[in-house]
Amino acid sequence: MTPNNNVILSRVRLARNLKDHPFYIQNKEKAREIVKKVNTALVKADTFNLYYMSNLSPLKLEEMKERYLISQNLIENYENGAVLINQDESVSIMVHEEDVIREQCFLRGLRIKEAYEKLDKIDDELSKKLPFAYDERLGYLTACPTNLGTGLRASVMMFLPALTESGKIRSVIKRVKELGLTVRGVYGEGSKAEGYMYQISNEVTLGITESDIIETITETAKEIAELERRVQETFYQKRRLETLDRCKRAYGILTNSALLSYSEFLELMASVKLGANLGFLKFKNVEALDDIIINARPMILCSEYGKELSPVERDVYRAEVVNIKLQKIKE
Amino acid sequence: MTPNNNVILSRVRLARNLKDHPFYIQNKEKAREIVKKVNTALVKADTFNLYYMSNLSPLKLEEMKERYLISQNLIENYENGAVLINQDESVSIMVHEEDVIREQCFLRGLRIKEAYEKLDKIDDELSKKLPFAYDERLGYLTACPTNLGTGLRASVMMFLPALTESGKIRSVIKRVKELGLTVRGVYGEGSKAEGYMYQISNEVTLGITESDIIETITETAKEIAELERRVQETFYQKRRLETLDRCKRAYGILTNSALLSYSEFLELMASVKLGANLGFLKFKNVEALDDIIINARPMILCSEYGKELSPVERDVYRAEVVNIKLQKIKE
Repeated sequence: MTPNNNVILSRVRLARNLKDHPFYIQNKEKAREIVKKVNTALVKADTFNLYYMSNLSPLKLEEMKERYLISQNLIENYENGAVLINQDESVSIMVHEEDVIREQCFLRGLRIKEAYEKLDKIDDELSKKLPFAYDERLGYLTACPTNLGTGLRASVMMFLPALTESGKIRSVIKRVKELGLTVRGVYGEGSKAEGYMYQISNEVTLGITESDIIETITETAKEIAELERRVQETFYQKRRLETLDRCKRAYGILTNSALLSYSEFLELMASVKLGANLGFLKFKNVEALDDIIINARPMILCSEYGKELSPVERDVYRAEVVNIKLQKIKE
Repeated sequence: MTPNNNVILSRVRLARNLKDHPFYIQNKEKAREIVKKVNTALVKADTFNLYYMSNLSPLKLEEMKERYLISQNLIENYENGAVLINQDESVSIMVHEEDVIREQCFLRGLRIKEAYEKLDKIDDELSKKLPFAYDERLGYLTACPTNLGTGLRASVMMFLPALTESGKIRSVIKRVKELGLTVRGVYGEGSKAEGYMYQISNEVTLGITESDIIETITETAKEIAELERRVQETFYQKRRLETLDRCKRAYGILTNSALLSYSEFLELMASVKLGANLGFLKFKNVEALDDIIINARPMILCSEYGKELSPVERDVYRAEVVNIKLQKIKE
């Protein structure tokens, strides 16, 4: 088991605003002009597709949000908001979000540095066409003072069943906070950790360098992953049969149900992933489990089906899809 | 669906005692002599194997009890008790039970009449060698006055999920009792109906003919089976998706668990059988489900394994065996 096994996703985000422009641009023509400039600037960096919020259906908006490509904030700026997304959907550049520009990059596993470097290149291209609001003393200026300085937020999403179930997660969270980092559930602040998932990110953006932030997050994630691995060994060894039973049953239910709510699905998938981690369940491709999780989200599911489904229809379709996908990757 | 689908088992039992002998024979030689006479008398009727309680291990005794071949009463008469069992185990003749002779026949489905006729022939052979205690006015004399008269108890074991879940079972039980019949759980008086199983038997043995008893039980079972079938149609049609989900999940858990207690197993098998009844789950051989149920009983399981297992070991082995057997008969 590599220590990265429990780091599902790395995310880096840069908040940028424009010199001589307010953080929030209400004028429609002006706002549209900035979107076009961003689009032009990005041509050099990668191939991006441009989407205006006002052109997208409510279903498509929710689906993109579930894929982390856009935020609720951007959806709410329905008039002016736009997003540029690269081909593999690892990079999305939101325009007219809380800040004028929000660049973000998502990569599988523990790859904060790689994500930052990818974004840094894009940021360089953007800054050539769009002079950023920057203060010698404060650094990048942002709509919210918590982003002042680097404008950088780096986070990792971690799967921590053993630390959660053993109760050791409390002391881990305490220690992580002492390092100036924040621990949250998957869907942002305040939401409870679903299916043993935790997001760890930097709190401080001011008076600290980009590489400090990246190193702190990376090292912390490595340490926690190693701790999780060690606790998994002892904690589940003591409860081997019960854990084996739980993991196998979770797979059994997921491949034999006719109705599957999203929350029950998440809970059962956590046990399936644990089973894969512990070697109780064998899959051809463990990463595919995370794909199944993402694609079972309500609106992504509807989008895959081709139309908006009622909650019950979603649960029926989720049961069907999850059954097929899980069996397909089972060894 | 035939109306017999919900009648799992038919049982007929005759209680007999010997002329000029007490109901309970304590003298070891005398008791042994009677066993030998029974054995000799049975040669004409069928091929029987003779087992003395005192020669059997506690595990074997419990296993035979779980197969309904012997009773707790017979086990308790460890010194003198014996049983004669025919080749397909449909007939067992207990000697020195509550009465000196207890003949019983078990057949699959609603076959009370057939079971009685099978036993009646055996009873004739026995009576030639061993004159029964009989009174012109009272009929056959028995240790307990509740068996006086015909000495006949006929019962059917029924699987009644829809009547149970709809609550209609209460009025059914009330009506059955008005007919002079008794309703019990599977393992005898007082035990609660496990997995929607009910045993319906005649209360009265005196002042009534054998054919009256057989007809009453048969007709009542037919009526209840028909009622169950009708309620299944309406009750589960209204809850189609939830029921489909429940039945499929039960199969999923039974084929994907590492620990399976007997009581959970029974509950899940009830849902699997319901699923088979409703056409939600397809099996090559639905009757094999009842075989799986019988063979998952604690001591039968140990006997199959070859040694006595601890409760946890049993649950592990049950999970393993049930998984294999269920998958084997699934279409």
